[in-house]
Amino acid sequence: MLPEHARTHNRALVLQTLYTEGAQSRADVARETGLTRVTVSDLVAALIAEGLVVELGQREDARPGKPATLIDVDREAFHIIGVDLSEHEVFRGAVVDLDGQILDRDEIARDGATGEAAVVLVERLVAKLLDRTTTPVLGIGIGSPGVVDPHGVVRSAPNLGWSDIALQERIATRFALPVHVANDANVGVLAEHGSSHHDDLLLIKIGHGVGAGLIIGGRPVIGGGFAAGEIGHVVVGTDGGPRCACGKDGCLEAWLAVPRLTAQLDELDELDERDEHHDGAASARDDILREAGRRLGIVLAPVVGALNLSEVVLSGPAELLDGPLHEATVDTLRTRTMAEHNRDLRLRMTEQAQDIVLRGAAVMVLSGQLGVS
Amino acid sequence: MLPEHARTHNRALVLQTLYTEGAQSRADVARETGLTRVTVSDLVAALIAEGLVVELGQREDARPGKPATLIDVDREAFHIIGVDLSEHEVFRGAVVDLDGQILDRDEIARDGATGEAAVVLVERLVAKLLDRTTTPVLGIGIGSPGVVDPHGVVRSAPNLGWSDIALQERIATRFALPVHVANDANVGVLAEHGSSHHDDLLLIKIGHGVGAGLIIGGRPVIGGGFAAGEIGHVVVGTDGGPRCACGKDGCLEAWLAVPRLTAQLDELDELDERDEHHDGAASARDDILREAGRRLGIVLAPVVGALNLSEVVLSGPAELLDGPLHEATVDTLRTRTMAEHNRDLRLRMTEQAQDIVLRGAAVMVLSGQLGVS
Ligand SMILES: [Zn+2]
Ligand SMILES: [Zn+2]
Repeated sequence: MLPEHARTHNRALVLQTLYTEGAQSRADVARETGLTRVTVSDLVAALIAEGLVVELGQREDARPGKPATLIDVDREAFHIIGVDLSEHEVFRGAVVDLDGQILDRDEIARDGATGEAAVVLVERLVAKLLDRTTTPVLGIGIGSPGVVDPHGVVRSAPNLGWSDIALQERIATRFALPVHVANDANVGVLAEHGSSHHDDLLLIKIGHGVGAGLIIGGRPVIGGGFAAGEIGHVVVGTDGGPRCACGKDGCLEAWLAVPRLTAQLDELDELDERDEHHDGAASARDDILREAGRRLGIVLAPVVGALNLSEVVLSGPAELLDGPLHEATVDTLRTRTMAEHNRDLRLRMTEQAQDIVLRGAAVMVLSGQLGVS
Repeated sequence: MLPEHARTHNRALVLQTLYTEGAQSRADVARETGLTRVTVSDLVAALIAEGLVVELGQREDARPGKPATLIDVDREAFHIIGVDLSEHEVFRGAVVDLDGQILDRDEIARDGATGEAAVVLVERLVAKLLDRTTTPVLGIGIGSPGVVDPHGVVRSAPNLGWSDIALQERIATRFALPVHVANDANVGVLAEHGSSHHDDLLLIKIGHGVGAGLIIGGRPVIGGGFAAGEIGHVVVGTDGGPRCACGKDGCLEAWLAVPRLTAQLDELDELDERDEHHDGAASARDDILREAGRRLGIVLAPVVGALNLSEVVLSGPAELLDGPLHEATVDTLRTRTMAEHNRDLRLRMTEQAQDIVLRGAAVMVLSGQLGVS
């Protein structure tokens, strides 16, 4: 290992230890990391100079004659700007602290903007968010729909009319701050990983489209063409299905995207209003949701089998997902895979609610700038 | 990083450099690895003492006054024993050199042995292989069907009647050598990875059963329950299918396992012999193979989509796989995923032929014992 690599590695190790375990002495950090006390003192001095670490005074329970100065990541030293471009109607943003708490929010209506107009809206939202904090900003994290390469170029986001938009470079140049851009579901799974005990994790993000974010062995999966998680246009089953916007029949999105589900349920409500026979309405609603869940299970079964996943997380409108849809997905996964191998599989709703991309964007900046997660 | 970790890491770095780039001077190694000359000299001295590295004399083109001694991994210093338990009729083994060349082979008929009798056969085969070499043995690598945990315990291999068999410990104790045991397809993909340019790779191994081995970001995927790649009993499509041994209808194995395919083709041959109308035979044969390939494509589409895989490799009888079956899988993958994301996907036959598990077992030992791959 090159000396400068070792230093970067050790610096991240010290920060990670303080970040996850909180206030402690330099000796504690040395013990925890296996680094020498001299190395730790040296690195901590540099981190204090950067304003990332702060001395908190003596330890109260210090042994007599050996008072230890406590140090910690200065969790108030920096803020992070998180931006979520995944919603159809609105671009949302937040000011997040180093502990991942959302301190303030803002949003900007999209009004159907695409192309350059949509980029200008992102700039405007970031500017508004930066106005909301006087604390130095560690960086800006952006979750975008579509295929995003590791340099933060949005290769393709049809909903926004973007193709090869160098969003990361554009925002970084405009605001002179570090910027990280990635696919919205790939960003979302970072937030979910923080609250999970598993190092293998699949997030299914159901909104205007359907996408997935995947962590394997603790590391995000990007894919050879940077399109990992793009399962919305995988065909489900061998019995046809609704026509999809992409021209194929029976894509996962055609079964499961929120506008599709909502349209089906609205149609049912209309029928119901015109009809006197109200009895069947609730069960017809459940049938629609159950069929959508079954279709999700059919697509997920080979993925769960191939990866032997422990945890699948659903993100999207709880009133649609959390109920018959969720149950049908679980049932379908059980009946279509080898039960004994996937006994421990857990399918659950996200704990991040609507903020999953905003929080994930903050995690992306923390990990990109500090090597901390 | 702990000092002993750094030393292990640097030792592997020196070995890997010599292993992949061949004979060179200590100064070359220092330049290549970024380590100091003192560190390299120190590590090389230890590796020479272990017999892993050897001095080869002066470099011919050495500049005057600066003759450089060439060093290399002593590729003849050790042999590796590779064992393949994945075939139904026979346990196969090989003596492999450090370059992965198969030097000698042996096998032992299984004769339907299961349980303890099958373990005894493995011991007998290993003993026969060890008799075939007088060179010190670096270790024994074994590819077993079923679910194998990271300690080399075969958790479940129904074909062999094994359940919680501590094969690694058993063989290690018997022969006093390092032993590595893993699932056969997970072992096979290690061999394939060596000849691939991709760091994301899926191997589909089609034999008595159907299993997969997966490498993501250069690292093997094991799965939460150590059952990654167990896709044989994932149900394909939504239109039923042949009854599977597991009780479900339309599992991938029920469509694709070699005995199933062979039985279907034999039936066709019998019909053909009795019948005068020979014309349809070739196309009926193609139809059977094409349908099996289509079923494989249906199961793989969600996996390829979720992982955005660049390369899928088929291993098994070429006379069945390499033709209409392969073509139908490719066609199905294209029509069931988003073409623009998976444009670069390549589906190909293995280059390792029948020896894929034997070679992979050697790679597993090299990587486990030397940190080299
Ligand atoms: Zn589609
Ligand atoms: Zn089955």
